[in-house]
Amino acid sequence: MKNKLFEPLLILTSAFGATATACAQQLPNIVLIFMDDMGYGDIGSFGASQYATPNIDQLAAAGMRFTNFYVAQAVSSASRAGLLTGCYPNRVGIQGALSPTAKTGLNPKEETIAEILKQRDYKTAAIGKWHLGHHQEFLPLQQGFDEYFGLPYSNDMWPVYYDNTRNIPPEYARKLNYPELPLIEGNKTIKEIKTIEEQAGLTTSYTHKAIEFIEKNKKNHFFLYMAHSMTHVPLAVSDKFKGKSEQGLFGDVMMEIDWSVGEIIKTLEKNGLTNKTLIIFTSDNGPWLSFGNHAGSTAGLREGKGTSYEGGQRVPCIMKWPDHIPQGTICNRIASTIDILPTLATITGCNLPKMKIDGINILPLLTGDKDANPRNTFLYYFRGNSLEAVRKGNWKLVFPHPGRSYVGFQPGKDGKPGGLDNDFSFSGGLYDLRRDPGERYDVSESYPEIVKELEKIADEARQDLGDDLTNNRGKNRRESGKLSEQNI
Amino acid sequence: MKNKLFEPLLILTSAFGATATACAQQLPNIVLIFMDDMGYGDIGSFGASQYATPNIDQLAAAGMRFTNFYVAQAVSSASRAGLLTGCYPNRVGIQGALSPTAKTGLNPKEETIAEILKQRDYKTAAIGKWHLGHHQEFLPLQQGFDEYFGLPYSNDMWPVYYDNTRNIPPEYARKLNYPELPLIEGNKTIKEIKTIEEQAGLTTSYTHKAIEFIEKNKKNHFFLYMAHSMTHVPLAVSDKFKGKSEQGLFGDVMMEIDWSVGEIIKTLEKNGLTNKTLIIFTSDNGPWLSFGNHAGSTAGLREGKGTSYEGGQRVPCIMKWPDHIPQGTICNRIASTIDILPTLATITGCNLPKMKIDGINILPLLTGDKDANPRNTFLYYFRGNSLEAVRKGNWKLVFPHPGRSYVGFQPGKDGKPGGLDNDFSFSGGLYDLRRDPGERYDVSESYPEIVKELEKIADEARQDLGDDLTNNRGKNRRESGKLSEQNI
Repeated sequence: MKNKLFEPLLILTSAFGATATACAQQLPNIVLIFMDDMGYGDIGSFGASQYATPNIDQLAAAGMRFTNFYVAQAVSSASRAGLLTGCYPNRVGIQGALSPTAKTGLNPKEETIAEILKQRDYKTAAIGKWHLGHHQEFLPLQQGFDEYFGLPYSNDMWPVYYDNTRNIPPEYARKLNYPELPLIEGNKTIKEIKTIEEQAGLTTSYTHKAIEFIEKNKKNHFFLYMAHSMTHVPLAVSDKFKGKSEQGLFGDVMMEIDWSVGEIIKTLEKNGLTNKTLIIFTSDNGPWLSFGNHAGSTAGLREGKGTSYEGGQRVPCIMKWPDHIPQGTICNRIASTIDILPTLATITGCNLPKMKIDGINILPLLTGDKDANPRNTFLYYFRGNSLEAVRKGNWKLVFPHPGRSYVGFQPGKDGKPGGLDNDFSFSGGLYDLRRDPGERYDVSESYPEIVKELEKIADEARQDLGDDLTNNRGKNRRESGKLSEQNI
Repeated sequence: MKNKLFEPLLILTSAFGATATACAQQLPNIVLIFMDDMGYGDIGSFGASQYATPNIDQLAAAGMRFTNFYVAQAVSSASRAGLLTGCYPNRVGIQGALSPTAKTGLNPKEETIAEILKQRDYKTAAIGKWHLGHHQEFLPLQQGFDEYFGLPYSNDMWPVYYDNTRNIPPEYARKLNYPELPLIEGNKTIKEIKTIEEQAGLTTSYTHKAIEFIEKNKKNHFFLYMAHSMTHVPLAVSDKFKGKSEQGLFGDVMMEIDWSVGEIIKTLEKNGLTNKTLIIFTSDNGPWLSFGNHAGSTAGLREGKGTSYEGGQRVPCIMKWPDHIPQGTICNRIASTIDILPTLATITGCNLPKMKIDGINILPLLTGDKDANPRNTFLYYFRGNSLEAVRKGNWKLVFPHPGRSYVGFQPGKDGKPGGLDNDFSFSGGLYDLRRDPGERYDVSESYPEIVKELEKIADEARQDLGDDLTNNRGKNRRESGKLSEQNI
């Protein structure tokens, strides 16, 4: 059975892999769906419970599922900077999550996926959450996108508390300085979102905009960057999905996201674009576990959002591209959101950005080359420029570091945050992620030679990118964009 | 796309679900592949690293993957008793792992899957590990199987240490009383296996026997119970897979198992049986983590073999049955090996065993009925008759209990066992297995009403099956088979 399924794909694949020119002749559409705070365990094919995601599962059944796929850093702005530039976010100077009072953004000199694809005249749209600078000079239209519709940052960055009232407790006083949540189209705020009921329409609006963009460009080749605001808290869902999952609101929201994916699939199908389109579905970081029943799941991985443990940094990823990606397959090689840019550049025959990037072309993984292992190492930076861990092959060495821990706290309920410790002292350790993806068993004592090998990789990274934990500055970091004078 | 894929299946499904008679008219072949000590994370589609299982992954892509699937108890004999009788193993009096000196076995009065299927004249074979009594009166031929070929118990139950020498350390002195490992055909020992090199041929021999059985019965309807000796330690692999995985021996062994699954798939295909065959692939319990690089993985679930935590009790399960099970789908409902017997009885129109069983017909799950939830609770018994935890929906309440823990110990290397604590005092807790399948966050303080609800379920179980932890005898337990006088 296997051979029957694979043969035609492999033939196409090798023809395809042979020349970059061949690829350029049949430029695929690219749909990149990027979730917010959705963890490794939050879709059916990665083990979600209490609701189903049949459309996303069918993407997996018809494509490839990545089980060792990492975000660039486990927090919103940094993760998105990594995705769109193909760099570790500390290389391009983006840290943490930019607030509505931030005066910085992704440096306009950095080249994004959209800018790269413009070499081949792709039509480009960013729909949904941006979070790489909300001042005009940093918005998507200034970073290679023809169109933009969405929120410039996280949907909880408004003068509203997590109970959806305006009674803001003292520990969230920063919210008092936040403006109403702007919904932006192009470079203009078209609406202020003031209530959770208005947020409930976001997934639907994003989906309609996406469909419109596909329909409008069905005769071109296009790049759709669909960055959902959900499942970031405050959770909001349209009436037609309210109460539909037995889990509660988180499950309802995931069902609506699954609907949205289904609508995109249907639109592609209707327009004969299914076989011409590469769909990528992934997330910006793991779940914000302290939100309890409003949080996602890591499927058992350690910790969550805001940490460099696997629960924060490893996310589900599915790629589907008929006739190129063999269907119903699994890729368990290390890969990352930062690899998407160079991979798309290879597929489309576009040049890489002029400045150094960290991403690696993973096309051989997509086409099912069994011997390919383009990326055998990964650097886990967090808190801006702290090198908290490194991975090589199946070994992950975690350095002692202060960090967020969710362990030992009762979670919040129904939208309210629960406890966490933002300054827990992790003692670090060596983990065999094959036997122990949950990072429960420190085996450094048994494998001192592996510890040494990984420390060497860390030292090289410190020379290049620096490391706040060891007071290394690094040689090759660049700066984020600063707000220009006329906008301050 | 979804609809296109699903429509024809759903039509068949509802026609099929309507009458048991309809099913009986087209009796499917049943191939049940049962692994040994293979954990939740050990196949590609469940997240395995450092080796690939493409044949098993294609079973999943063409069938249904179960993500909340449990063994009856997380140890060999008990688990197998549960699988074959449809009962919690404590109900039928089978505890732990029967040793070569045991004088008991599964009571011949219990009705196994094979005996049930004999109502419809199924041809039946047990190939591989049995472990429900090695004295003749307990062997497969006496439990409904026409044929048997394999080891009567675990492959480490021989007078050989884990380094494959006969230098047995004092703490394993019991091994000195074990005979050479018998390879049995029918009721007769046909060979004594004395070396690891001889064990290396087991997977191949089992596979050849399975193919022979399928070929011989291609015009009948048959039930093949294929119970691999691998991945139980000592790991052994044939030359053609030695050194093939980058993981080492465990990965090599998994690659050979994947080859074996591929051979069975090919044999069915060659004989036109693909669409007439229900294939079930699962395991007897989670990984024996103390064996380090020779152990499997839980994918991040807590603890492993020999515990009632998810890492011990939750296993991968895939079912494929073209035209009945919708392809590329996920079932995240609770289901268990004990549900296989009543489900097969329903499919084939056979009567259930006369004595009470615990399994529930899960056919509605297989056919993709979105509203079906046949089993919403599960009892986690371990150490014979200790009720260590109960689950309802997504809540799992773990009672304080002494048990095995792998945490805090260095694992063994290259076949030798590492440390573990067999009497750790677990304090218990309430876990939300949707958000927290890794059982890291006890939320009992936040959900006292759920604790009460689950305690009630436990109390009912104690009345019925008993509970050693609370000194309850239970009303409805039966006894295992005792060796008859002439055999003592």
